[in-house]
Amino acid sequence: MKIVITGGTGFLGLMLARALVKRGQLTAPSGNAERIDEILLFDMVAPAVRPAGLDERVKIETGQISDGARVRALVDRDDIGIFHLASVVSGEGEQNFDLAMQVNLDGTRHLLEAARARGSRPRLVFASSIAVFGGDGMPPSVGDAVKQTPQTTYGVTKAIGELLVNDYSRKGFIDGRSVRLPTIVIRPGKPNKAASSFASGVFREPLNGIDCALPVTLDTVMPVSGYRTAVENMIRLYELPPEKLGSDRAVGLPSLDVTVGEMVESLKRVAGNRHLGEITVAPDPFIQKIVAGWPTGTNFKRATSLGLAADESLDPIVKGYIEDFLS
Amino acid sequence: MKIVITGGTGFLGLMLARALVKRGQLTAPSGNAERIDEILLFDMVAPAVRPAGLDERVKIETGQISDGARVRALVDRDDIGIFHLASVVSGEGEQNFDLAMQVNLDGTRHLLEAARARGSRPRLVFASSIAVFGGDGMPPSVGDAVKQTPQTTYGVTKAIGELLVNDYSRKGFIDGRSVRLPTIVIRPGKPNKAASSFASGVFREPLNGIDCALPVTLDTVMPVSGYRTAVENMIRLYELPPEKLGSDRAVGLPSLDVTVGEMVESLKRVAGNRHLGEITVAPDPFIQKIVAGWPTGTNFKRATSLGLAADESLDPIVKGYIEDFLS
Repeated sequence: MKIVITGGTGFLGLMLARALVKRGQLTAPSGNAERIDEILLFDMVAPAVRPAGLDERVKIETGQISDGARVRALVDRDDIGIFHLASVVSGEGEQNFDLAMQVNLDGTRHLLEAARARGSRPRLVFASSIAVFGGDGMPPSVGDAVKQTPQTTYGVTKAIGELLVNDYSRKGFIDGRSVRLPTIVIRPGKPNKAASSFASGVFREPLNGIDCALPVTLDTVMPVSGYRTAVENMIRLYELPPEKLGSDRAVGLPSLDVTVGEMVESLKRVAGNRHLGEITVAPDPFIQKIVAGWPTGTNFKRATSLGLAADESLDPIVKGYIEDFLS
Repeated sequence: MKIVITGGTGFLGLMLARALVKRGQLTAPSGNAERIDEILLFDMVAPAVRPAGLDERVKIETGQISDGARVRALVDRDDIGIFHLASVVSGEGEQNFDLAMQVNLDGTRHLLEAARARGSRPRLVFASSIAVFGGDGMPPSVGDAVKQTPQTTYGVTKAIGELLVNDYSRKGFIDGRSVRLPTIVIRPGKPNKAASSFASGVFREPLNGIDCALPVTLDTVMPVSGYRTAVENMIRLYELPPEKLGSDRAVGLPSLDVTVGEMVESLKRVAGNRHLGEITVAPDPFIQKIVAGWPTGTNFKRATSLGLAADESLDPIVKGYIEDFLS
């Protein structure tokens, strides 16, 4: 079988590709394990240097997800599985509404149409986000049963994506699932335009000897998931028989609901004798306002009952980052 | 000011136009009453005979809501108010997915973009539907706080419309509101293929001397609203100051949650000595199954607290239909 990962050269896309390379197979809709013979990473740009951990089965192609013809060409086999991660992120979406609609809404529709056009009901996992929640009526803890009134354009496009994946699945066009991600930590590399970028930066910059100015206060609570767990859960959700999902195929991933202060404590605990960059608190009203509108916890009973994995604490997440990126 | 009503020659569009002609003015975003000097009814087709109750201010234009350039041309003044009623209905949407997406999703986006392009933050009322609710997790009584997992493509496009109206309003592009309609009774004319068609037919056919075979049992409960109340509520919601709506600008209208048996009783009570067509119960498993998936009540406390009107009972609805269509 072929796997397409949109947003494939992004952090999560690459980690997912590496995990799939290691596994070498996936449970197909038939219920049988099928060998993966090609993994196509589709993204706006290709890395200058070929990333480690990928073998000859992994191909990288560049293009725009908002280009319908280009997206159609990606879905060129009946035995295909799709992980749709391509997305404008939250901060960027607030700054560029039209780009968020083109990439996140039109792009998702192009991909769903491309999958539908095959006629083989491809299995597809769409990366949604906890940013679907927000607004006056939002409870502190969110979950699969909570009304979605997102307060960012990013969150709106993710909520729409969940609705479309549900309907394309109900109609039998695809066999879709949406994985609703909390903030994923610890992202390597440089800060990005996501308003949640600091939740990785608070670990990453100090571990790399760089000072970190936090744009939010230490008592800010965020639901987070380690990337290893998130990638594992994307694969588990992909492999789940559709009848287990019922009429709502969007599943909120388990989260650790932790304060930024607890992130700092875990970092110091795990880092031991490592030299750490200095952490200061310098609240940024633009970021603080966005984050204040986010939920501070999640109810993930459904995810657990479906067999998805949960992080036990922050410490293994910090250790995993050190293993994966600093060893 | 100019008023545009999309779907303007449909039943609700025409009733709304007549109500606006009678009022002659609307509270503008400024808070002041503004005289309506033009009402444009935009629809796919124009009636062969000009409908009664419209004066020279009312113009009728035909075109496709899925035609972006055509829709842009409708929004040709800064002092404009928009009622967006154009829509593929539920049964048609299930039969023609692509048409539902073109009309209900793309059409709504065209109209929102046309309104945004003016730069005057036009006020807009979008007609949503109780069909946004459904699925495994739906409670018997639905409302503004309930998760939307629609089980028809029609419902999906309405849920997406609510999300888009919220976001265009949050961004300051428009001053939007969504009015979530229960089943509207008593629609004049002929039965259609909608599963809810009997909720008007049970009154209309007997009053017109036609026999009516009910496809559901008499204990079937449905949330309904009279069309006069629904039209009045669209206008009230239009006139509401935006700060009253908070972050979710979609409001579920009050409903009467009545059994089909109560509909029959009300009909007989109000009809008095009129000759009525005979009502028989001939359950249609197909219709009965669809209706069984619908909510049986609504929580409309928010609508009431916002000053929207509620029907007191079925009897005035039957009397209103007789006055409007049989006198």
